[in-house]
Amino acid sequence: MKTLADRIAVAAKRAAPDLVLKGARVINVFSHEVIKADVAICGEFIAGVGPDYSGERVLELDGAFVSPGLIDAHIHMESSMLHPRRLACALLRCGTTTIIADPHEIANVAGLKGIDFMLRETTGLPLDVFFMAPSCVPASPLETSGAVIGPAELKYLAQNPRILGLAEVMNYPGIVAGSQELLEKIEIFSEKIIDGHCPGLGGEGLQGYISAGIRSDHECTTTEEVIEKLRSGMVIMIREGSVAKNLQDLAPAVNSERAGRFCLVSDDLHPQDIVGMGHLNHILKKATVLGIDPVVAVKLVTLNPANFYRLHDRGAVAPGYRADLVIFEDLGEFKVRSVIKNGRPVLEELDQIEELDLTCPDELNIMECSPVPPNAFSIPCEGKKRARLIELVDRQIITKAAIEEIKGVQGLFKPDIERDILTIAVVERYKGSGRTGLGLVRGFGLKRGAIGASIAHDSHNIVTVGADAIDMAVAANEIMRMKGGLVVAEGGSVIKRLPLPIGGLMSMEPLGDVSRLLVSLCKEARARLGCTLEDPFMVLSFLALPVIPELRVTDLGMVDVNEFKVVSLFL
Amino acid sequence: MKTLADRIAVAAKRAAPDLVLKGARVINVFSHEVIKADVAICGEFIAGVGPDYSGERVLELDGAFVSPGLIDAHIHMESSMLHPRRLACALLRCGTTTIIADPHEIANVAGLKGIDFMLRETTGLPLDVFFMAPSCVPASPLETSGAVIGPAELKYLAQNPRILGLAEVMNYPGIVAGSQELLEKIEIFSEKIIDGHCPGLGGEGLQGYISAGIRSDHECTTTEEVIEKLRSGMVIMIREGSVAKNLQDLAPAVNSERAGRFCLVSDDLHPQDIVGMGHLNHILKKATVLGIDPVVAVKLVTLNPANFYRLHDRGAVAPGYRADLVIFEDLGEFKVRSVIKNGRPVLEELDQIEELDLTCPDELNIMECSPVPPNAFSIPCEGKKRARLIELVDRQIITKAAIEEIKGVQGLFKPDIERDILTIAVVERYKGSGRTGLGLVRGFGLKRGAIGASIAHDSHNIVTVGADAIDMAVAANEIMRMKGGLVVAEGGSVIKRLPLPIGGLMSMEPLGDVSRLLVSLCKEARARLGCTLEDPFMVLSFLALPVIPELRVTDLGMVDVNEFKVVSLFL
Repeated sequence: MKTLADRIAVAAKRAAPDLVLKGARVINVFSHEVIKADVAICGEFIAGVGPDYSGERVLELDGAFVSPGLIDAHIHMESSMLHPRRLACALLRCGTTTIIADPHEIANVAGLKGIDFMLRETTGLPLDVFFMAPSCVPASPLETSGAVIGPAELKYLAQNPRILGLAEVMNYPGIVAGSQELLEKIEIFSEKIIDGHCPGLGGEGLQGYISAGIRSDHECTTTEEVIEKLRSGMVIMIREGSVAKNLQDLAPAVNSERAGRFCLVSDDLHPQDIVGMGHLNHILKKATVLGIDPVVAVKLVTLNPANFYRLHDRGAVAPGYRADLVIFEDLGEFKVRSVIKNGRPVLEELDQIEELDLTCPDELNIMECSPVPPNAFSIPCEGKKRARLIELVDRQIITKAAIEEIKGVQGLFKPDIERDILTIAVVERYKGSGRTGLGLVRGFGLKRGAIGASIAHDSHNIVTVGADAIDMAVAANEIMRMKGGLVVAEGGSVIKRLPLPIGGLMSMEPLGDVSRLLVSLCKEARARLGCTLEDPFMVLSFLALPVIPELRVTDLGMVDVNEFKVVSLFL
Repeated sequence: MKTLADRIAVAAKRAAPDLVLKGARVINVFSHEVIKADVAICGEFIAGVGPDYSGERVLELDGAFVSPGLIDAHIHMESSMLHPRRLACALLRCGTTTIIADPHEIANVAGLKGIDFMLRETTGLPLDVFFMAPSCVPASPLETSGAVIGPAELKYLAQNPRILGLAEVMNYPGIVAGSQELLEKIEIFSEKIIDGHCPGLGGEGLQGYISAGIRSDHECTTTEEVIEKLRSGMVIMIREGSVAKNLQDLAPAVNSERAGRFCLVSDDLHPQDIVGMGHLNHILKKATVLGIDPVVAVKLVTLNPANFYRLHDRGAVAPGYRADLVIFEDLGEFKVRSVIKNGRPVLEELDQIEELDLTCPDELNIMECSPVPPNAFSIPCEGKKRARLIELVDRQIITKAAIEEIKGVQGLFKPDIERDILTIAVVERYKGSGRTGLGLVRGFGLKRGAIGASIAHDSHNIVTVGADAIDMAVAANEIMRMKGGLVVAEGGSVIKRLPLPIGGLMSMEPLGDVSRLLVSLCKEARARLGCTLEDPFMVLSFLALPVIPELRVTDLGMVDVNEFKVVSLFL
């Protein structure tokens, strides 16, 4: 254990560093420069940055770039479908040393038990994982979640030093309207950080939302929105993840003068994207391509998130800062050569850390429902009827509410392949209620079979869409049997499955396997079932989310989001 | 008492504001812009900023500028010679709504009793006064102070939420050398803010100093020094006060890109300068003249100090921020039209606040010493001898160590008016020791009489300089009689006095009176005694400070600062 005196002695060259990064080009996020220097490390901290540090243990960098370890200010770990320990290792390999995670997916499934699992499984890792306490569990009264995070649970969470504040307050209309229940939650965190989520909000509504003490937003889609929110005091988190990609549109708003007011975040990151692209290292590369100065871009994923989350010990390569560092080969590709956490190179030990005592606690194998009969998802329909239909919108998670005439045969609707009108069903999985919501959707293009998933934002009930009601039942029953997962079914059989035993959201398997399996499920859905979407499971996972316009389906039935109520399938 | 719900309702225009600033030009420290808008206030906070807010109580601004209330990140209140309550009111009149004060002057005199007085007398005012715990009391073992602030005292102070951290760590050689006593102090504040003070420090010494966790400096004198410290992670506080003026030299280092890393501070502010120029409003004016963009300059005295001291509720005109505002007529002169603190205009009530229950506690009337005989300050000297001499340096607080031959007459040295070699004496005033240090000084130009003061950094013993040893004794005895103050004496009589009964540092009188009296004391010293200095009391007050090169005098005798030891007067 190194003392403060040791660190000062190293900085002042009276003692040898534990590690020297020699011949570095150091990214300076204070002055927006790259400066040639050595970096002297003592224990877990940087002692000094300057010329001519030397010691026994030296990493010769030959001009490689030393950056502060990357910090993702907003990520939902569950979206990776990985055990949190495996995700931590995957992110470290990309140069990330700190994340601020919102565990609201697992919280919807398992409440405090789920959050405790995330906390526990991310303890003692070389990735520092901080959390925000989920503010909106459940997201809506128009669905059934596995748990409720109310004021009592939030007070419990607020005591944990690893919980930095209140996670994205998604119910922005509720805040603007002054909902007492929401304000009670806000007040629990009045001395901490409160993250926002207010797509498109402006004018006095935005003023109302921010006046509650909400100081960040990651939902901007235009530079005009960025500017209004920035002027009003928000830190703008530009999101570039697997689901939403805003960097191209928003990059023009970033310049060196305003650089202190932005972060770059991933929000949601799917396994195949981690494999194919990476994490913040990929976002840095893209930011640079889009014209953001690379040093400024680095600041957006280091010093800025550290400052925003009041992590005063990190975010810069400077004396007294935590020695969380990533060494990049270049500032174009941002290829990671080495990652140092708390003063120690960590890439070599990740394989071992990842496998050690990996557990899936029984209490997260949550599947309180019984197998459904083969006709469970057949929609009764006598003759021709006008029905509500969820219409997918290309590359967006909003949907359109359409109305189409459908036809029953022998009293039942049969998915209309010709017109791409398929059946979608959501089965409640927490209370054993057997409650099932049925609806219609257009846009998947399935010609046969069905797909199903236990990832269905935000409550994560079982959702299935199909060209065949029996295959939908097969998919749902297989998900129940696996206690969570993704399934492709056809001809009454399961064709392919990805088990997600941790809360129905996360796998126990390594990133490579999860990614390959997911890719092959999507491929089967396309090749075998005729699906026209690149990633039908991702699209499916948002169709049960009754807070995004216009039409959704939950276990309670179809939901008109604009009207904020359950509506009948038939008009 | 307004609730969060009230504030949101006002922002969202569902309820009327308590106060509207109508037709403002709002200084936006996030985007570096001036934007036309109304500012809606609810209770102590800003609810919304935007068009068309209205309510019963409206301030029509007609395009006047609304700025966040000004924040001085580093000030020693005692330098004003005012009761802290009177200073608070004077600063508010200049647009200042928050200060971070280092009470090390009163701490050297009275220890915790002195700091408690400062805390108590600045409670409940419309100026928010935060403190830093003095790190270096006494400043040096080469003088006798009235108190010692050690680790036990610092632990007591660290519990007070109004004490934000450890004040300027002036003993930078001690830090770099790893002094265990200093590091113990540092570690008490490892989770709080630690201010620096390291003039001219660079290279590995600077790395060592900063690696201790010290994150600010206000002692830069060149842009090169600024850049090195800024790159190393320090926030640069550019000082422009009554004693040291660095703004002209350092202004070129400030630009909009680096604007987040600077503050503007006063450090020391004398009463006549507050009357004649103001406070941060004056510094803003000067910064603008020197080419700093006025909006950037405002950021340096609002958002930046708020961020640095983790005062997350203030520093911007934005929803949810504390309604601490100053209304300027313009951004050139920065003429203050109105000041709003916690949502209420305050200028009108300051006269009343200032006089209410103004007390000088007996425990701060500290003068534990006995009158001296008329010959107390006569220097024994047989014939010609070579002696050490403090040589003043024009407009600087450093001195030069000179050596001159002096001559005794009847065994005593008589000040040599011709060669401007005067006697200087320091009398210990806390322990009743009667200990007196005698020395020689050149640069005051006194032709007759003497001046004396109980302001003598940092220990604030009694210091007197004179062309006449008897008048020096008259001055010292009058200071003892008043229990502190400034004196001009001539011909065996007191000519003029300024009593400073609060610890020998501060007056009970209003700013105008203190300023006038001080000016007239200086005038008497010049006109009547022939002094060639503009403000001889200010110069005198630094001659007993044995931490600034090269030669000083304390109650222990002459001190060679470079050698860090007491030296004999004669060689």
